[in-house]
Amino acid sequence: MKFSDRFLLMESTIKNLQTKICNGLESEDTIKFISDKWDRPEGGGGITNVIQNGSVFEKGGVNISSVHGVMPKEMAERLKTHEQNFAACGLSLVMHPYSPRIPTIHMNIRYFEMEDGSFWYGGGVDLTPYFPHKEDFQHFHQTMKKACDSIDHELHSNYKAECDSYFTIEHRNEMRGIGGVFFDYLKDDGDKNFTLVKAIGDAFLPSYLPIVQKRRDEDFIADDKQFQLIRRGRYVEFNLIYDRGTLFGLKTNGRVESILMSLPKEVNFIYDWKPEEGSVHAEMLRYYQPCDWVG
Amino acid sequence: MKFSDRFLLMESTIKNLQTKICNGLESEDTIKFISDKWDRPEGGGGITNVIQNGSVFEKGGVNISSVHGVMPKEMAERLKTHEQNFAACGLSLVMHPYSPRIPTIHMNIRYFEMEDGSFWYGGGVDLTPYFPHKEDFQHFHQTMKKACDSIDHELHSNYKAECDSYFTIEHRNEMRGIGGVFFDYLKDDGDKNFTLVKAIGDAFLPSYLPIVQKRRDEDFIADDKQFQLIRRGRYVEFNLIYDRGTLFGLKTNGRVESILMSLPKEVNFIYDWKPEEGSVHAEMLRYYQPCDWVG
Repeated sequence: MKFSDRFLLMESTIKNLQTKICNGLESEDTIKFISDKWDRPEGGGGITNVIQNGSVFEKGGVNISSVHGVMPKEMAERLKTHEQNFAACGLSLVMHPYSPRIPTIHMNIRYFEMEDGSFWYGGGVDLTPYFPHKEDFQHFHQTMKKACDSIDHELHSNYKAECDSYFTIEHRNEMRGIGGVFFDYLKDDGDKNFTLVKAIGDAFLPSYLPIVQKRRDEDFIADDKQFQLIRRGRYVEFNLIYDRGTLFGLKTNGRVESILMSLPKEVNFIYDWKPEEGSVHAEMLRYYQPCDWVG
Repeated sequence: MKFSDRFLLMESTIKNLQTKICNGLESEDTIKFISDKWDRPEGGGGITNVIQNGSVFEKGGVNISSVHGVMPKEMAERLKTHEQNFAACGLSLVMHPYSPRIPTIHMNIRYFEMEDGSFWYGGGVDLTPYFPHKEDFQHFHQTMKKACDSIDHELHSNYKAECDSYFTIEHRNEMRGIGGVFFDYLKDDGDKNFTLVKAIGDAFLPSYLPIVQKRRDEDFIADDKQFQLIRRGRYVEFNLIYDRGTLFGLKTNGRVESILMSLPKEVNFIYDWKPEEGSVHAEMLRYYQPCDWVG
């Protein structure tokens, strides 16, 4: 199977984006990303850039992968097609700062094509804060809205609603964070969807770095840290029970360490935890529900 | 639907067992279990006994539940039957000690019956140690073997093999611990299966308390603690990705806090962690594979 021009363009775009994003994030920390290059026995491979135990980022990864070959059975079943050749590439990142004043952030953009000629784009960005800095949430959502608006003013409200729905921890009836944008199976021909995923990728640093810079030197107390560790537990619950990419990756023999890179380093699970009434954490809990942050 | 005599016998058995086991475990700690009684809106309820931040047990629960009513759709689908009345009761326990010298332990025994007259027993016990105390592993497995042998000498080798298989973290090709016994859908009429689950329940304290007593005052170093926190991460991976009871409970609107009680309090997820060659932790890793501990 020959890679399409769309594939090659997406592949070079995510490579450049990985470098740009890692440079941007490194500028906020005292340590650098470490790079692990890996091959996929069945075809393709990836580069996992990891940062761990930094002064700002406790754990994070900015990963790209470009894989191809005959699709695994699970993939064909999920896509409701026969086991044909496929090619897929994407960038995935998760950053877990040490300070509960700085939100966790996740982004993924991806492209998929099959031998039969079908193809699609997908992606998303979502923010998981641990402190009710409402102006930060507005900044983040407005930056994502601007990126969507640069393509089409109709997009953002749908993609934000899809994100609120996707990143819901169903058994708790709450979101893992405050959402962002999420879209999948964008199949239209033309440049529109590539332009969208590129705009989202380019919006990552402007959506996040100003928050990191503003919050990195703020003090916090033990209760703030405890709240963060508990919310990280909810992050783990979401990723291991509901996240399609994680489960699909693990079931199709993906590289385990790159997939589970998304899990935070230190996590707490506490029985029947409840916030103190009237506390900032009780306030923050209310924002893990769909809210209008751009109105 | 009228409860069968089997149901009523199992219900009183798990109530007594909960008391006996909590008393036994409390005798090793400086704090007591706290009891949460809960009702299931659709019928029945349970008692969740929780211990947290003890001197020996960092987190643990010994839960009983007895529920009934029309089965949820997911349950009927899983059982390949129509949505009829059912009744189920069981005891579930997980104990996560603070010290990495003392293993984590899990046990579950359960009974299920339906309006159409079918019924079955299930259960299991498995040990998750963090230090290669081989004589403890032998003691644990031999105690379980003795319990099985008291019913039928054919049982143990099958139930041990089922346990090795069930508690496997497939994406890592390793077990979460060193296994024990596991069985499900035991449908034979007569007293044999009730006698088995009772024997397993009664074997819990003799299988575990001697290990707690032997190891509770042993010193450990930071590396031992780190290894435990990482292995607890694997425990979380297993419970949230593979454990049927956990996933089924969450999807059928079970009591979230009682179900996720099984997760350890403090957990670490570290990128691409590997033990030092020749260390006790490298040795321990080799035992998270099916081994003969009773031969």
